[in-house]
Amino acid sequence: MSQQQIRIGIAGYGNLGRGVEAAIARNPDMALVGVFTRRAPESVQTLSAQTAVHPIASLPDYRDAIDVLILCGGSKDDLPHQGPEMAAMFNTVDSFDTHARIPEYFASVDAPAKANGKTALIAIGWDPGMFSLNRLYGEALLPDGATYTFWGKGLSQGHSDAIRRVPGVKAGVQYTLPSPEAIKQVRSGTRPELTTRQKHTRECHVVLEEGADAAAVEQAIVTMPDYFADYDTSVNFISEETLRTEHNRMPHGGFVIRSGNTSEAHTQVIEYALQLDSNPEFTASVLVAYARAACRLNAQGQYGAKTAFDIAPGLLSIKSPAQLREELL
Amino acid sequence: MSQQQIRIGIAGYGNLGRGVEAAIARNPDMALVGVFTRRAPESVQTLSAQTAVHPIASLPDYRDAIDVLILCGGSKDDLPHQGPEMAAMFNTVDSFDTHARIPEYFASVDAPAKANGKTALIAIGWDPGMFSLNRLYGEALLPDGATYTFWGKGLSQGHSDAIRRVPGVKAGVQYTLPSPEAIKQVRSGTRPELTTRQKHTRECHVVLEEGADAAAVEQAIVTMPDYFADYDTSVNFISEETLRTEHNRMPHGGFVIRSGNTSEAHTQVIEYALQLDSNPEFTASVLVAYARAACRLNAQGQYGAKTAFDIAPGLLSIKSPAQLREELL
Repeated sequence: MSQQQIRIGIAGYGNLGRGVEAAIARNPDMALVGVFTRRAPESVQTLSAQTAVHPIASLPDYRDAIDVLILCGGSKDDLPHQGPEMAAMFNTVDSFDTHARIPEYFASVDAPAKANGKTALIAIGWDPGMFSLNRLYGEALLPDGATYTFWGKGLSQGHSDAIRRVPGVKAGVQYTLPSPEAIKQVRSGTRPELTTRQKHTRECHVVLEEGADAAAVEQAIVTMPDYFADYDTSVNFISEETLRTEHNRMPHGGFVIRSGNTSEAHTQVIEYALQLDSNPEFTASVLVAYARAACRLNAQGQYGAKTAFDIAPGLLSIKSPAQLREELL
Repeated sequence: MSQQQIRIGIAGYGNLGRGVEAAIARNPDMALVGVFTRRAPESVQTLSAQTAVHPIASLPDYRDAIDVLILCGGSKDDLPHQGPEMAAMFNTVDSFDTHARIPEYFASVDAPAKANGKTALIAIGWDPGMFSLNRLYGEALLPDGATYTFWGKGLSQGHSDAIRRVPGVKAGVQYTLPSPEAIKQVRSGTRPELTTRQKHTRECHVVLEEGADAAAVEQAIVTMPDYFADYDTSVNFISEETLRTEHNRMPHGGFVIRSGNTSEAHTQVIEYALQLDSNPEFTASVLVAYARAACRLNAQGQYGAKTAFDIAPGLLSIKSPAQLREELL
């Protein structure tokens, strides 16, 4: 670990934490101090054999050894208490993604971070995160316009869980797909009014329990309120083998499209698209780039909670401002 | 003009200046102080009859009346002297777009701005500008990857001028088009090595002088060094009428695509695309959003030259940070 490297800690080691470990290895100005976990450290298999694993309770001992702690817990059960607690001890970056609770979470992290001279970046990732940035840029550049967010093709964890709760279902996954017809309309710049249902379809791949009634299962899924009833939903029955071999990835992505007029005669269309082989690995890569910004902001005395909206893009790059102007502008 | 509005001046009134006038009308927190021109003010026809027109030499009298001056001159002849001169008196935003000279231009504007407590945003627009930002974000989020910029379909002023200099050509326009095959390869995430020639084709629409030899004109165009010799170039002969009715717009746009790996198994693709009916109006809209940021940065005491890389996205929005977190994150 060189003196100049940014020293990173990972709190929580699921898919996201593993993605952070992989991303740090691709950023030469960063060094991984270790993984901090609630599990028995010796039971955790890290990507690299060199990665140290410590009990999460030992984190306070690492206050001086870690420049930025990346919080890889979940938004429902972990971050609401972990975010404020850790922001009192470390500069942090997290991917809190319960959109409706962001203002309240922001406030809960802001106070301890400010009180302790720490910088806490919240809601970092791609949505919230890069998609949010593109909603903001689109609106600011084309104030007379409309913004559309499409998700997919992507595996939805919540909807996959809902399928698995249907009696007769042994296993299954659900993909959200953007509707090609809706995307075409939006790209034309005509600013159509579209409901979420018109913008997306849902595709289910289901493994039945032995002897289950396929028609009844299909009916239970497509009529499920909140999850499927409002969508065009297709249900395919597959074998366990197919589920394991063809649905073992976590692809995701989508589009943010802003169309607007700069004069009556002229329509302009801005589109930001992500096509992700692995949702958690991409989210982790975003967290790691923002960890660089957290470290720099803290060095500038910029304390408290911040979101992607507050971060100048240049702070994400390993390159110096002069180098960025010369090479990328 | 309300007390809270940002007071904008426009220096130079060509297509870009006119676009700025149109954009200000779409941003309720801004007010236009006036257009400042080298031409005789009474000869200038503005979009709105309400717009005041003043001689550019009177600008020093407006130091206290203008919060941000938007420089709408050209990068070749106007900005190299106007940028530094105006940055000593005003907060400025410009669209300096000679990529190779940006470091030198930055330094020439930075010194007078800093010395006089002004904020000068340079090289704002879409390339340099939004495309530069997306090259930066792409590289920072996917350090193990490759970035591709495609332009078009778009009218190229420089290449259109080159056509018009060919003997026998009365008038003409040139469009740059991205190659669909190259875009497809890049989107696949395979990181192909592509030359500018492989990425683009050039399409010329030419009106011949009476009695000119079409074959000779075509040959002169497609073999012209620097401009066309290295590209697949097509030449179409059209009437003056067709030129006037079908080629009177200034469309442009393009793509910035970053593909990269977050692990050996997983490729991720980020794409930013613009589809512009009017290149100058879109550039003007970007300038106006950044004028908001210039005003805010100056109020924070952030003096000197800055580029889009230095500007936190939230500074571009009319909305407050709390509103942005609630509505767009």
